[in-house]
Amino acid sequence: MKSTSEQLAKSIGAVLEGDPGVELAGVAAPEKAGPHDLIYVESHKHASRARESSANCVVAGEGIVLEGKTVLRAAHPKLAFAKAAEILLGRPPIAAGIHPTAIVAPGVLLAEKVSIGPYAVIGDEVHIGAGTQIGAHTVIGAGCRIGEDSRLHARVTLYSGVRIGNRTEIHSGAVIGADGFGYASGEGRYWKFPQAGIVEIGDDVEIGANTTIDRGSLDNTRIADGVKLDNLVHIGHNCQIGAHTVIAAQVGLSGSCVFGQHVTVGGQAGFGERCHLQDNAIIGGQSGVLGGKIIRGGEAVWGTPARSLAKFKEQFAWLGKLPQLANRIKQLEAKLGSP
Amino acid sequence: MKSTSEQLAKSIGAVLEGDPGVELAGVAAPEKAGPHDLIYVESHKHASRARESSANCVVAGEGIVLEGKTVLRAAHPKLAFAKAAEILLGRPPIAAGIHPTAIVAPGVLLAEKVSIGPYAVIGDEVHIGAGTQIGAHTVIGAGCRIGEDSRLHARVTLYSGVRIGNRTEIHSGAVIGADGFGYASGEGRYWKFPQAGIVEIGDDVEIGANTTIDRGSLDNTRIADGVKLDNLVHIGHNCQIGAHTVIAAQVGLSGSCVFGQHVTVGGQAGFGERCHLQDNAIIGGQSGVLGGKIIRGGEAVWGTPARSLAKFKEQFAWLGKLPQLANRIKQLEAKLGSP
Amino acid sequence: MKSTSEQLAKSIGAVLEGDPGVELAGVAAPEKAGPHDLIYVESHKHASRARESSANCVVAGEGIVLEGKTVLRAAHPKLAFAKAAEILLGRPPIAAGIHPTAIVAPGVLLAEKVSIGPYAVIGDEVHIGAGTQIGAHTVIGAGCRIGEDSRLHARVTLYSGVRIGNRTEIHSGAVIGADGFGYASGEGRYWKFPQAGIVEIGDDVEIGANTTIDRGSLDNTRIADGVKLDNLVHIGHNCQIGAHTVIAAQVGLSGSCVFGQHVTVGGQAGFGERCHLQDNAIIGGQSGVLGGKIIRGGEAVWGTPARSLAKFKEQFAWLGKLPQLANRIKQLEAKLGSP
Repeated sequence: MKSTSEQLAKSIGAVLEGDPGVELAGVAAPEKAGPHDLIYVESHKHASRARESSANCVVAGEGIVLEGKTVLRAAHPKLAFAKAAEILLGRPPIAAGIHPTAIVAPGVLLAEKVSIGPYAVIGDEVHIGAGTQIGAHTVIGAGCRIGEDSRLHARVTLYSGVRIGNRTEIHSGAVIGADGFGYASGEGRYWKFPQAGIVEIGDDVEIGANTTIDRGSLDNTRIADGVKLDNLVHIGHNCQIGAHTVIAAQVGLSGSCVFGQHVTVGGQAGFGERCHLQDNAIIGGQSGVLGGKIIRGGEAVWGTPARSLAKFKEQFAWLGKLPQLANRIKQLEAKLGSP
Repeated sequence: MKSTSEQLAKSIGAVLEGDPGVELAGVAAPEKAGPHDLIYVESHKHASRARESSANCVVAGEGIVLEGKTVLRAAHPKLAFAKAAEILLGRPPIAAGIHPTAIVAPGVLLAEKVSIGPYAVIGDEVHIGAGTQIGAHTVIGAGCRIGEDSRLHARVTLYSGVRIGNRTEIHSGAVIGADGFGYASGEGRYWKFPQAGIVEIGDDVEIGANTTIDRGSLDNTRIADGVKLDNLVHIGHNCQIGAHTVIAAQVGLSGSCVFGQHVTVGGQAGFGERCHLQDNAIIGGQSGVLGGKIIRGGEAVWGTPARSLAKFKEQFAWLGKLPQLANRIKQLEAKLGSP
Repeated sequence: MKSTSEQLAKSIGAVLEGDPGVELAGVAAPEKAGPHDLIYVESHKHASRARESSANCVVAGEGIVLEGKTVLRAAHPKLAFAKAAEILLGRPPIAAGIHPTAIVAPGVLLAEKVSIGPYAVIGDEVHIGAGTQIGAHTVIGAGCRIGEDSRLHARVTLYSGVRIGNRTEIHSGAVIGADGFGYASGEGRYWKFPQAGIVEIGDDVEIGANTTIDRGSLDNTRIADGVKLDNLVHIGHNCQIGAHTVIAAQVGLSGSCVFGQHVTVGGQAGFGERCHLQDNAIIGGQSGVLGGKIIRGGEAVWGTPARSLAKFKEQFAWLGKLPQLANRIKQLEAKLGSP
């Protein structure tokens, strides 16, 4: 939606410096921006990129001087820019109305302004809240509950009984609620252990493309409010992910892991069964946390098996010094006429 | 299906201790169970959880005393519980009948009691055995053969020519039989190498959500009976996976790997081309096995490059002792007045 | 398409030795070949496999003697064989004609000989070039542009605005153009950062099953000509992948990575934000390249954090020698009567 510099400053809580009437219609990187694109600059280092841009209006942090530009001054320019972009761009619609080819089972409750794309399949007794959009080819199993203003893109699968909150976005190819990987071993083979729980997903969650979240076994799998999962993430059965935790691409969690709030996990990290990450833990990319381990609140870890980031770096530095150590041993041996 | 404690004991080969008439309708964790839920307890450590549960009937191992409960006594309580759960819960149906929107090509043979969900697409000359269920939106390429009582969930893709046995379950988003990653390099670019084989999958296999199994190149890719693959696993062309091998999430196999029977692979492990894992090998999570390597029967390995678990642990312990070693060298140097 | 040994030799630029009239209808491994299958042999080591084969005609490198066989002599036999296979096998059709259940939006331009499978959904203003095939259930967002003779298999998703070149093949389950993983942190939660760019994919690219390529944020994500991506690969927003780069399965790239031409990346490697890999770099499987790192042209690296392959091997060797080093320290201490 188009806006002016003055309206936008008000909406995002920024201080306007310059022309209140700059017309804005989009956002861009400084190098690609036209006169009606909003840009942003966080640090003095990048100020020249903004100055040389064709953009007329810039979201900028305190103290960054941008002659000839209208500035929306903000303490957190990236955050202010993100909010402005949300206003200017909105979100592209996933579906419009209920497509005639969508198959909606008996007993489904659709609140107002629900839209459902072509060939979507909605199972028995599903409830979908107001304003929620369901993409083409998405399959929703029996008994699912979806809140308001959520967005399920094309080709998502929800198995039966999944609960999803409000304003949650799920990308294409994600599979929520498939059976967990649980077996009882005996008599020379594996027997399927019951996967009888469900998946509960909170509000304002985003789930990446082709990510999988398994249903609980005898408990439920839970993803709290504000969690962000990147693409191709795997969440095993019974995992509990705390609010505002961020998990990068291709991370894998075995069953029954418990993550606190505001945890940050780098790409491709892996977690054994029943890990416990306390609030604000930070896990480096490709780390491997052993089953049952506790990572304390705020701790940063790296490596496989995961240890504190400081210790990892120290050990890595020592590894590089081994030729020197060996040489010093050799010199000592020479002095002593040994071995 | 509802049952009584007496019927269930008989069905799973457990010894009934207590009331033969407890009515059972489901399974649960002890803390969540109601009076008609079956629970289980494996060890003395967890006996109090069972005692405090509202459940009336417990599958329990030898020697675990549970006053006031009806006990189904079993040598392997988890296994007995899994069998009981299968009886009590069954498996949720994937489809009922042949949905009118399913597209079934000419020459397809459907045995009795096959069910096919909405918008599924079944290619030319496909044969599907009795009792097999095909989920909504699943696409089955020409010439595939699927056995009896198999379950393909919604949104599975089988490329042409895939063979699947009996009682095999494939979860949503899995792609079976896509082209392998094979090229001939020359003239400054890559030329597609023929991917002309198929994929053969045995009986009682389970394949996780969004897992990919590539078709053979000049050979076939084979997954033997009882193999369990978790989510987001990648199996390259020409791989041969032996019976009852278990592979956790996000594991990747390059082309032409040969795995024996009863191999266990931890999550995110990776395998170079033409690895050979003998029966009962155990591969730790995130291990990297180099191309062409042989892992001997029953051996446990960890790390990248993978080495014996004992050696990995030893080396990891040494890594932690390097500051001490360096200090000892320093002291020796001080004594000798060097360097 | 059937051919004769003479025609085929001409087509692939090989020298015919023997019978010009061998009828060829397919390709096979030597052990599985029938008389009308073409086989190939690269080295003397495998010559006996060819000699013992039932195949009449063999693509072979210089100097490999194969009595009784008709030989198509080629400097690069694997390359010649790949070209011959392309002629003999063609590529299996993905769709034939425009299926009546395909939903084609207003404003879509389909060039001649486009085919579209059942239940595919083509969004507004999409353009599809001559000879391109679109598989069943594939969903193409508004405004996408696809070149000529490209092949999108069943169950692919293109979000809006994706550009794809000519002769590019995309396998089932791939998701191109989903939102990148970008947020601004503030006020105790994460705010979606605009993901307003698109994805541009060149000619002769192949993209594996269930691979995800995110759309750009304020820039575009670009995959140049001839790039090959295996299954379950993740490409973050704004990444730039140079021509003829090859990336094996389950590799993950964070945002804004820049890869040169002819880069080779082993399976499960991971890349932090803004990595820069120069032309011909070689990245070992499971390596972890830190954000912002530059890997120089032609360099081979391995490990996490990635270092030169030579250094990795040296360090790994030292790790194995630690018990000996410790023992030598102990002996020195004994000599000196310490500690």
